[in-house]
Amino acid sequence: MDAHQEALPDVIGRSIPRIDGRPKVTGHARFAADIAVRGMLHGRPVLAMPAHARIERIDVAGALAVPGVVAVLTAADLPIATEGNDRLHEPLARHEILWAGQPVALVVADTAEAAADAAQLVLVETTPLDAVVDLERAFEGGAPRARLTRPIEETVSGSAESQHAAVGGGAEEFTPDEPASANVVARSGYRRGDVESALAACDVVVEGRFTTSWVHQGYLEPQVATAATDDDGILHVTSATQGTFQTRSELARLFGRPIAAVRVTGATLGGAFGGKFLIVEPLAAAAALVVGRPVRVELTRNEDFRMSNPAPAGLIEVRAGATRDGRLRGLRARIRFDAGAFAESSVEGIAAMLTIGPYRWDAHEVVAFGIETNRFGTGAYRAPGATQATFALEQLIDELALRLDLDPIELRRRNLVGPDDEMADGTPWGGIGLAECLGRVAEHPLYRDRASLPDGEGVGLAVGAWPGGRQAASALCRLEADGRVTVVTGVVDMSGTMTGFATIAAAGLGIAADDVSVVAADTASAPRSPFSGGSVITYSMGRAVERATAVLREKILGYAAQVLEIDVRDLELADGAVRPKGTPERGITLAEIGERMDGWSAKHEPLEGHAGSIPPGLAPLTVVHLIHVRVDLESGEVRVLDHVVAQDVGRALNPAIIEGQLHGGATQGLGWALREAMVFDDAGQLLTGTFLDYALPTATDGPRFETLIVEVPSTDGPYGARGIGEGPVCGAAAAAANAVHDATGVRYRTLPMTAQRIWRGLRDRAPD
Amino acid sequence: MDAHQEALPDVIGRSIPRIDGRPKVTGHARFAADIAVRGMLHGRPVLAMPAHARIERIDVAGALAVPGVVAVLTAADLPIATEGNDRLHEPLARHEILWAGQPVALVVADTAEAAADAAQLVLVETTPLDAVVDLERAFEGGAPRARLTRPIEETVSGSAESQHAAVGGGAEEFTPDEPASANVVARSGYRRGDVESALAACDVVVEGRFTTSWVHQGYLEPQVATAATDDDGILHVTSATQGTFQTRSELARLFGRPIAAVRVTGATLGGAFGGKFLIVEPLAAAAALVVGRPVRVELTRNEDFRMSNPAPAGLIEVRAGATRDGRLRGLRARIRFDAGAFAESSVEGIAAMLTIGPYRWDAHEVVAFGIETNRFGTGAYRAPGATQATFALEQLIDELALRLDLDPIELRRRNLVGPDDEMADGTPWGGIGLAECLGRVAEHPLYRDRASLPDGEGVGLAVGAWPGGRQAASALCRLEADGRVTVVTGVVDMSGTMTGFATIAAAGLGIAADDVSVVAADTASAPRSPFSGGSVITYSMGRAVERATAVLREKILGYAAQVLEIDVRDLELADGAVRPKGTPERGITLAEIGERMDGWSAKHEPLEGHAGSIPPGLAPLTVVHLIHVRVDLESGEVRVLDHVVAQDVGRALNPAIIEGQLHGGATQGLGWALREAMVFDDAGQLLTGTFLDYALPTATDGPRFETLIVEVPSTDGPYGARGIGEGPVCGAAAAAANAVHDATGVRYRTLPMTAQRIWRGLRDRAPD
Repeated sequence: MDAHQEALPDVIGRSIPRIDGRPKVTGHARFAADIAVRGMLHGRPVLAMPAHARIERIDVAGALAVPGVVAVLTAADLPIATEGNDRLHEPLARHEILWAGQPVALVVADTAEAAADAAQLVLVETTPLDAVVDLERAFEGGAPRARLTRPIEETVSGSAESQHAAVGGGAEEFTPDEPASANVVARSGYRRGDVESALAACDVVVEGRFTTSWVHQGYLEPQVATAATDDDGILHVTSATQGTFQTRSELARLFGRPIAAVRVTGATLGGAFGGKFLIVEPLAAAAALVVGRPVRVELTRNEDFRMSNPAPAGLIEVRAGATRDGRLRGLRARIRFDAGAFAESSVEGIAAMLTIGPYRWDAHEVVAFGIETNRFGTGAYRAPGATQATFALEQLIDELALRLDLDPIELRRRNLVGPDDEMADGTPWGGIGLAECLGRVAEHPLYRDRASLPDGEGVGLAVGAWPGGRQAASALCRLEADGRVTVVTGVVDMSGTMTGFATIAAAGLGIAADDVSVVAADTASAPRSPFSGGSVITYSMGRAVERATAVLREKILGYAAQVLEIDVRDLELADGAVRPKGTPERGITLAEIGERMDGWSAKHEPLEGHAGSIPPGLAPLTVVHLIHVRVDLESGEVRVLDHVVAQDVGRALNPAIIEGQLHGGATQGLGWALREAMVFDDAGQLLTGTFLDYALPTATDGPRFETLIVEVPSTDGPYGARGIGEGPVCGAAAAAANAVHDATGVRYRTLPMTAQRIWRGLRDRAPD
Repeated sequence: MDAHQEALPDVIGRSIPRIDGRPKVTGHARFAADIAVRGMLHGRPVLAMPAHARIERIDVAGALAVPGVVAVLTAADLPIATEGNDRLHEPLARHEILWAGQPVALVVADTAEAAADAAQLVLVETTPLDAVVDLERAFEGGAPRARLTRPIEETVSGSAESQHAAVGGGAEEFTPDEPASANVVARSGYRRGDVESALAACDVVVEGRFTTSWVHQGYLEPQVATAATDDDGILHVTSATQGTFQTRSELARLFGRPIAAVRVTGATLGGAFGGKFLIVEPLAAAAALVVGRPVRVELTRNEDFRMSNPAPAGLIEVRAGATRDGRLRGLRARIRFDAGAFAESSVEGIAAMLTIGPYRWDAHEVVAFGIETNRFGTGAYRAPGATQATFALEQLIDELALRLDLDPIELRRRNLVGPDDEMADGTPWGGIGLAECLGRVAEHPLYRDRASLPDGEGVGLAVGAWPGGRQAASALCRLEADGRVTVVTGVVDMSGTMTGFATIAAAGLGIAADDVSVVAADTASAPRSPFSGGSVITYSMGRAVERATAVLREKILGYAAQVLEIDVRDLELADGAVRPKGTPERGITLAEIGERMDGWSAKHEPLEGHAGSIPPGLAPLTVVHLIHVRVDLESGEVRVLDHVVAQDVGRALNPAIIEGQLHGGATQGLGWALREAMVFDDAGQLLTGTFLDYALPTATDGPRFETLIVEVPSTDGPYGARGIGEGPVCGAAAAAANAVHDATGVRYRTLPMTAQRIWRGLRDRAPD
């Protein structure tokens, strides 16, 4: 693929098992709830019943009387040292209940049973307030407020006062000034050129209004955190978190402590997908500080559904047009996302960026609004905003291709961005492999032969794109006494990233990946590490590991040059030994070097490499989904038969892990497409609070997956690797919708496309 | 003192409290035995009764029948993968019991009580063998062997076959070929010049035969280790050890594992003094591997006395002579040390080196022998060999001064080594501050006015010298988000070294020591670190910390230069901020820099410094003790009234900690001098197995201490600091003996100088 490919170390591109695989499949892995802590207490949250109410009084006497109960904490009891309107500062509701399920009190008891019993005896007296649960009504002027009290009066991000900022390439970021209710707490907009003229000049204009539901990250391990104060007064939190350093910073800020007076240990994660950041940690930590003993907060599945931070529901209205020559000309979109009780995540802003897709438009204008309602705080969910944005855009692109009588791949190809084109926010796309992904799918028999499918079957495709992320990262690499190598980072392994580090280090040092061990250290001892999310780990931390390895390699060669008395330029490091280029028999093995470094008599500084890094630019992820469905025209049930995922991974460090990632992400995309929705009644009560009601896809629902790995190396990633994680979910739901349209002639614009919805659409020849 | 003194950062030389002080004095510190481990079993060793015997059969049936007992392990059950004659390879006696107290079996049970009950039911059937317990008889040809069986037949170190090696400066290392029994397992010798001629040319020759006892390190926390196999198969040992990395290497070697498949966490130490290396760890680890559950081995005080590794008894015969001009001319010495059951520590070799003292002799010849007996394995004890060697040498120097009618300080001054003089093994002494120490003591009123003491009182002085050690070390230094700094090493804090690191890092970064936190990481995540012992930590790891800090400093300045758009040469880092030299108001604080580095939006690599180091040379420790005693001429009781310790510390990073070290070391020296001895009966049974029988000095025994801190900077230590720990014990017992001689006219040549011994010496006018 690229010029350097043949020079790549052997270990790159080799499928090796995940380091975390064996302990997980054999049941040996110990998750956060499995860790024994002496003298530990159990914290049980008391969740609010109404969706919106003023708290008048919380009566804890009954709960306190339960044997084994140590404390019942309410918001006023928490040792929070700073103020803020964010969820971090409100682990327990203060004066106002913001959603049905918000934690109002925390019972702390010797046993989990006592805590659970007592939690039922906490009486929360409230005065009801209007529950703001309908997104569109909440947006309208004069709507009741979803939140009446706020600790800090502040100008919410993107106020109605319009602001503009050029972001380069003729593009502009701006604050849309459309009149709306005070529930609108976030506004953002992107535009370039004159979109009305562009649309007016189009031969074909299509439009649609797309609706998506609240979707839970569906991790199998509910949230859990344990906090205790160490001997030396350090607050030590062990939790199922995606980001130990971020958790440390935020808890230090919350409790007004020096950063080093908080220590966070990441436990083996039982799934996360963007949802595991600081939901239970502040509760456990606050309780441990108050009662002076270790406290664990371990949510039940139902509590996790009711109080965590799923992906928000959204409403996307788009008009898009093209000219007969197959050129995309203009796109206008309005996005309204539920921000729930806390608007921190700004998912609507990302969706706004992604709604123009990886395409060149003559002009575009996208506005987005985050609307406070009486629901959870919103969280990240693998590629937040992307599933929603692509569900809208890629259906319209499909429709344009049909209307223009163009091959849908051809229409996309003609309008793909080039390396110098920019995203909505002015970030250059750089070199991406989307054309190659489209090319691979175009050649696929499923696509070539799609005209010959039987009735009720259809094939659809969609493109997904994720800008990628980058974060500052450092890593440490040690040559051990036995010649093997240890890599130390503070990264929480979420998807095989540790195994990726082993490959990267092995490649840099000419050893086998088995000879590298990777340590996930806690915040006390680790080099500074990013959180696991946003597809940054392999790209950003992998780069730091590559650099740390290079430093170690230089030190090893320098030492060997001394020992062998040979110029370092005449030495090479391969197969676990340093050897003179001409006379390999005169070499010295890494094991021999390691042994010389060991013990009292070592005469040389330790051979270790440390390096920090931040990639200078992003390495966007692009993907094409090709989905083959069979729709039961009687029942409306959709069965996905084949699902081809072609993704540009930059460099496939370990194809087996990449395939697993693509399967997992695509499965989640199909969950969005066909099954998953958090459903509420009109009063805002969650109706789908268990895995019996909430229809997470299972292995038996899976189609035949096929993965097409495209390698267009990134400029800055290790060996050209890009992030992978967010990619395979992007566009999956859109491809499924296009396939359903291909099978049925009906275009569904609401997720999930349940059998009921499909059946109604078939009946009415139009979706609901 | 030195030219750079006035340029030193403020924080250097400031007495700040020890970081570990508060948790220890408030009882919050958690020691190795305080750590809760889920599902942990208790291992109780079964100790051998006879001092020497062949094991015929071990009957474990009765022990196994005790409810709660999980396993009873004997040597054959241990999963030891390699062979060796060292103690490491013999955590349980194999076929031969080598001393009364050697572990023969390990009972593993659910509770400590069940394990203890069952341990009494393990029947060890043995055939008695000759117990070799008298050092001199063991040395003689034809003596019974202390050990009949050996897994590996090997040439013991320093065989009777004589070998020679020039070590520079006319000095020579050689293997003495004196005929002796096969119990002699170690031989070493140092010589320079023709010692017989040198002695023949002397005007005065003195000689003596000096005897010292087995002395226990007397740590307050008995040995304890806990081992378990982690999820991922890693053997994880948490223990009260002085050296985590060394323990890891040795356990990996023992069990045939990759280094990274062993992880060692050092617990807060409750004293160690050289004794806490791999005594209980192999037992706990082997048991955990066998039973597949966590196992703790926590010794009782009596077990610790009977099975650990105290300092060996020794016998030193010295002749030394001088000419009338006060020049030391010739020294000949023969040293015989008990090697116990394992000869690994080679304490007699160090004693041989130290017996010539920090003096120039025209010629010297010292031979040393390690003699296997049926006693414990020998261990290190703060300055191993030094107390014994100085006890001999410094009494003879005192005697020479009296015979030559020279002031004892003057005699020493005339013969002190210069920077280019060499130790017995050819190592250069370098610049040492011993002359300054002698100068400070010479000025002391106690010394000046010593002639006017009442009857029964006396003053004595002695010099101590320790070559110092150096080890390879690495450290990591992180700027945190709040502008404070964290230092990460794998060093176990033994004597305030962590606090020293805080001072060193603070000095390098222009911040307060309070703004530095120091992390003792385990072997999984720490930069490679030496064990705590041999006075190497401040000198070697402190140097690595200094260097890592310098790397961080450069990175901070470089970043600030970018942000401030000012040439880095025009910036200075002080008081927690980087400021332009002329316009300090334009600066940026470390807190501001830290905040910019925090979180998702950071645009710069993490600011961290990592560095490895090994000091190019040693920085010897030198000390002078001046002791004032009152001897009760009726009872023989010696009371130390004043004890002045003048030590060259190179640079007093934190005078309060140094004073504590000097008090502690000097107290231990007085323990050797007056109280401490492990006493055995003729069959080799220990009679002093509790702190009621073993007379450790207590705070109430302490004299008025006075410390005189001399600062002659070392070339390579951080800010010129030297190691400190071994110094203050060296020479204390000799000074006490010289003081007792001054008070009584009797020269005592056996340690400890108990009241009974003093009384007998006074009665006979000669010591026993």
